[in-house]
Formats: sequence, structure tokens, C-alpha cells
Amino acid sequence: MYTIESINGGVCAAEGFYADGIHIGLKKEGAKDLAFIYSDTPCAIASVFTTNKMTAAPIRHFRTKGEFEGNFVLINSKNANAMTGPEGIKDIDDVLHALDAKFPQIQHPVMSSTGVIGVRLPKEKIIEGAMSFDLTSREGNNASEAIMTTDTFAKWISFEVKLEGGKSFRIGAMAKGAGMINPAMATMLCFITTDALVDKTTMQTILDTCTKTTFNAASVDGDTSTNDTVLLMANGQSGTFHHAAFSEVLESIMLFLAKEMVRDGEGATKLVTYKVTGAKGNREAEIAAKALSNSLLVKTALFGQDPNWGRIASTVGASGVECDEAHLSIWFDDVCVYRKGELLFDEKLEPLAAAVMQKNAFTIHCDIGLGEGGFTAYGCDLGHEYVKINADYRT
Amino acid sequence: MYTIESINGGVCAAEGFYADGIHIGLKKEGAKDLAFIYSDTPCAIASVFTTNKMTAAPIRHFRTKGEFEGNFVLINSKNANAMTGPEGIKDIDDVLHALDAKFPQIQHPVMSSTGVIGVRLPKEKIIEGAMSFDLTSREGNNASEAIMTTDTFAKWISFEVKLEGGKSFRIGAMAKGAGMINPAMATMLCFITTDALVDKTTMQTILDTCTKTTFNAASVDGDTSTNDTVLLMANGQSGTFHHAAFSEVLESIMLFLAKEMVRDGEGATKLVTYKVTGAKGNREAEIAAKALSNSLLVKTALFGQDPNWGRIASTVGASGVECDEAHLSIWFDDVCVYRKGELLFDEKLEPLAAAVMQKNAFTIHCDIGLGEGGFTAYGCDLGHEYVKINADYRT
Repeated sequence: MYTIESINGGVCAAEGFYADGIHIGLKKEGAKDLAFIYSDTPCAIASVFTTNKMTAAPIRHFRTKGEFEGNFVLINSKNANAMTGPEGIKDIDDVLHALDAKFPQIQHPVMSSTGVIGVRLPKEKIIEGAMSFDLTSREGNNASEAIMTTDTFAKWISFEVKLEGGKSFRIGAMAKGAGMINPAMATMLCFITTDALVDKTTMQTILDTCTKTTFNAASVDGDTSTNDTVLLMANGQSGTFHHAAFSEVLESIMLFLAKEMVRDGEGATKLVTYKVTGAKGNREAEIAAKALSNSLLVKTALFGQDPNWGRIASTVGASGVECDEAHLSIWFDDVCVYRKGELLFDEKLEPLAAAVMQKNAFTIHCDIGLGEGGFTAYGCDLGHEYVKINADYRT
Repeated sequence: MYTIESINGGVCAAEGFYADGIHIGLKKEGAKDLAFIYSDTPCAIASVFTTNKMTAAPIRHFRTKGEFEGNFVLINSKNANAMTGPEGIKDIDDVLHALDAKFPQIQHPVMSSTGVIGVRLPKEKIIEGAMSFDLTSREGNNASEAIMTTDTFAKWISFEVKLEGGKSFRIGAMAKGAGMINPAMATMLCFITTDALVDKTTMQTILDTCTKTTFNAASVDGDTSTNDTVLLMANGQSGTFHHAAFSEVLESIMLFLAKEMVRDGEGATKLVTYKVTGAKGNREAEIAAKALSNSLLVKTALFGQDPNWGRIASTVGASGVECDEAHLSIWFDDVCVYRKGELLFDEKLEPLAAAVMQKNAFTIHCDIGLGEGGFTAYGCDLGHEYVKINADYRT
């Protein structure tokens, strides 16, 4: 039917897309802090935004545009342009008007921001910096660096889908995450570009479906930011589309980036998959899985590599879903530590469970034993670095 | 009408109540780990228990007793007797039968436990230790030490209420808290004794009301334990009662102990009061206040003494309550840092806000500006000590 191949390029992998990232003085020591993505033909755009009521100015600005086809996204780090009122919206207008004036090929530009809340956008610096953009650059790696905040590594991925009959299309993406990643998609930005020939409605439906099992299943600290954004831009230049292949690749890309974000969570040393099965329904399983991935007591036990399965059981019990100790079972990878009321933990089992917890990535599986509902969430541990980073974020 | 006077004695302050705490080898280095409270006449008992579905054995055991008047509570630390199945219940029966046999004056004894989940109760040690109890001891301080887990200080308080005409009654209490204190009343035990002449139904109603604004408004880390218990025992020996005075003193006692628990939260260095006003309703205010007291990003900013009001705004926005940046205002004590869309924070205001955050106790007040709903929650910061304590709890 089709084959999927990993390729280079990130957000520049698809035909007709260009990107770069530069330093304009928002970050220290020459680190890149301003990025763009440009398509040389108009794009259908699908989007998912934060559920936070204190929605940042860039998202409110995007929403005022109504239906449109655009070809340009400007992204800055270090300043979230959130809680900045009508002035925050005007700052975006000023920046985008300056871009319009300088680059006539830009149509319906939009903006995205991440960083500190409650400080006006340094729009002069941004405008001055943006004037030096070279729209023929294909430096997706630079762009993915420029959108980082407390991330310790840039996150990008791209694929080519080869269909029967020689046709093919490409999808590439970049994201930033680190702190505040939450089941409700907190402080994360993700930009996905494709040359697939797909209309906005189809794309939006696929994007919404994939978001549930990827970004919305990932948690670093349970907080939801003012700026979370996923943008998917399709310029149609490949002239082809395949629904199943597109959905499959998009979910792979988003799951990869979601896991990369969790793995790079502030101070995180472990990527933990929380698989809940046997719940009364999928929604109940989701509640329990997300409660586990957000529990401070579970996270600190993970950091301490302590196979304290009692905290797992207690957290499932506290989540409010229907459950009881007589039906619950718990595994650390394939080591069963509690089975339907039976205390299995002893001197022989403890080192086996402890060995699982020493791994960089493993699965905690809770079978509630009452139904058919399932959900998988992704989380990380919480260690001293998280406290250090967040106790002194603004300085 | 009446006067309220602080007195010594804790759970032994009220007429006819006795208590002590001893070391039986559950804790290391001679620390007390087994306590009792005894009344020389039968007591009406009101209770509030955890909402965790994985309810610990002592609570399930209590609930099987139906209606009863008792005069004895046995409390152990270091072992929660949770996730221990039918054996956990049988262990309690065995312990209480041994007590019955040794002390004929004990009627309908109950048990309460706190500590590690998923390990069978060391019932031989407990029975052997309990045999040495002296039921004429009035060592409330020893009892309050014996119920401590990661608490760094014992928590107790007692009052005498003097009514017109020379009559009076007393109420005393002890509690343990530290980690896992949550809006839903996590790993906390609280025992309250009184010689007021009050029936169970009246007492239960007052206890339920007071719980909402005290223990259920306090949070250390957002987790809810398997063992949370508040017991209120009234032996009526004063022969008198005054509804308003009793309610007032009970709420004072519970609020004091709730704040003491938060102040002694694992690794906590600050007690923060989160006052939310102007919400659409009281329930909305409660959601927002508890979201603030549970937010990791807020807690770490507190630890870092960083007046990052953007995180306060973002957390209120993420809580799901109706709000917007144009109506919200935020104060650190009496320093207004954000007023209805106006960015007030500047070089002059920042040191004032930072000075508030350097205090051991202060209030963060959010006025949502949309209605009349209000709620006050209590929380603490999260620092390196929390991580250290919880990463390695069982060892």
C-alpha cells in the first residue's frame, strides 16, 4: 500500500517550505530566539490551542482572523506575550505589519510566543531581527533551536510517505516542551508542515484525533500554559494524499515529539509509560492514567528509583475512578508486584522491581480488573533539577 | 455569652480522657510509635474518612461496626495497613481482641494506622506493646509524638469554654500530617476529644461543616491517602453544651491543626494562604484556590521566593473556572501586582512583592472580578527537601 521513511529536514522537509532561526538578543550569549516558517504557496492551516482561560495574545490574535490561508509563522522565545491585554494584540499587529511591508510574498502571517508571562513583547527587537530573515533558508534545525526555552535539546522529525504508483508526500515537524507539559497540552509549541494535498477540515479532524493520544496524554508537571499551540500547515505541493498513511505518520510524529518533551521535562531523568487497562470505560482509564502521571508522590518515588507500588495503588484509588484492591493488579514492565489483592512483594521480588525502576524508560501497568477501558499516558520523574529550574525561572 | 481559653493537655484536656504514646520498635532509636486514647466512660463518636477508593483496613474495619459507642482508640505509625486485603482486617481483629482480654474497661475499641502501604501489620509487636499500656496515663504529648511519620514536630491544642453561670466544657486534639496533605484530606490523622454533652448527629454535622474550611482546604502535595481519618469523641462528662461555642472552638482547633500540618509539610518553608474572591460562585472559588495551592509551578516559585505572578494568573486560567485577564487582580499580602488587565509590575514594585515572598507566612489574593464567590485554601512551597524525603521514603 505505502511505505514510510524517516528523512532529514524537519519543518523544511516538505516541498516549498523554508525556515530559519536567528539570535536577536532575547536570549543570552548568542542563543537563537526568533524563528520563521514560510511556504512559497498558501497553506491550509489546522490548529489546536490551550484550554487555559488566560489565553495568550498570539492565540487570541490567530482566532480573530477567522478563515484564512496563510504562508508564514513567526515564533519568538523568552516572552509569552500573555496577560498583556489589548496592547499585546497590538504589538503582534505592529510586528506582522512590518513583516508584510518588508516581504511582499508573505500572506496572512501569524505569530506564536513562549516564555515569561506578563511582560510586554519586545517588538522593536523582534521587528529589527525579522528584517534580516532570508526566506530562501532551509535551516529547520536553527528554527527548532530558536523556539527552545528550558529544553535541553532541539526536537524535530520528518518522514516521507511513498504511495503505490510512485507518488509521495512529506510531513515534518518541530516542537518545544520542557516544563508545564500537562495532559491538557501545556507550554508546548509544535509546528507541522506537509506538502500533502489535504483540505483544512480533513486535516483538523485528524489533528484532533491524534492530539488526544499524544500531546494530551503527556505530562511533566500538571500545569497548563497560556500559550500551547499546535499548528499544521499543508501547501498541497506534492499533489497527492492518502488518508490512512497521513493519519499514521501524523500520529507517529506527534507521539515521538510528545515523548521527547516528557523525556526532556525539567529535571526529568526517566520517561515512564502509564498503561491503565480494565477500567469501567476509556474515560475512567484516562483519568487514572493521568492521575498517575501527575502524582507528586509517584514522580518522586520514580526519581528515587523506589518501587513503592503502594503509591501507585493509592493514586489510582484517589483518582476517583471505580476500583478496589481485590481486582487491581500492578506491573513494573513485566514484573508483577501486586495481583488482585495478593501481596507479592518480598525480598526476591523487590530487587527485580527496583531493577526496572533504574531504567531510563519503562512501563507501569495497572489493570483495574473491572472492565474493558484503557488509556496510555506518558510522564517523567521529578527531581532536584525541577525544583532548581522552577524556583528561579525568571532570573 | 462565653469565653474561650487555651489550656494544656491536648487529647487529655477534657474530663475523663487518658492517653499515652510508647516505643514498641516500629520506628528506630526509641521513637514513640504506638498511642492510645481512652475515656473512662463511653463516647459518642463522629468521623470523617478519606475519599480514596483504596480505603485502608482500619477504616473499613471501623465502618463494619455500624452504630456504636466506644471508649478506646489504638494508633500505630510506620505501617498503614492498606492494600492488605481481608488479612488486614483480621490483623485488626486479633489486636483488638487481645486488648479486650487484657483491659476489661475497654469497650468497642477501634484502630487507626499510618505509614507504608502494602505491608502486613506487625501485629505481634503491637499486641505485645499494648499490653504495657497504663490507662491512667495523661500523657497527651507522648501520644501526639507516637502518631508522627515525617512530621518534624508534634501537633496538639486544647481549649476550655466557660459558659455563663459557671459551667464549662473542654475540647482537645492531636494530629499528624506532613506529606500527602491534600484538599481531599490526605495522609492525615486527627483525634479530637471533648467532655461536652453532645449527641453523635449534632457532632457529625458540625464536624462535616468544619472539615470543608479546614482540613479539606489544606494541601501539601495534592495526593490523597488511603488512611485519612478525623475522629471526634465526646464522653459528656462536663454535663453541658453550647452549640455556637462548640462550633467556634472546633473550627479553630481544626484550622490551627490544618495550618500546622501545611507549615510542617515535607520540606515546606512557607505557609501560604490562597484567598480567591470574585468568582462566579463559592464552588468556582474553591476550584481556583485549590488549583493554586496544588500547582507545582506556583509551589516552586514560592520556594524560590520569586514573585512570578504570571504563574498565579496562568494557574487560575488553567483551573477551568470562568475568568479573564481584564477582570482579574492579584495581591501578595497588600501589594497589588496586577489589576484588571493593568501590568503594574515594575522595578519599584518587584522588590515590594519579593519582600512579601521572603516571609514565612503570607497571603496570595486573587480577585476574579466576576461575582461574589469566595474560598480560602492553605498550601506550602515545594523545595529540595520534599524531593529528598519522598524519593527515598521507604528506606
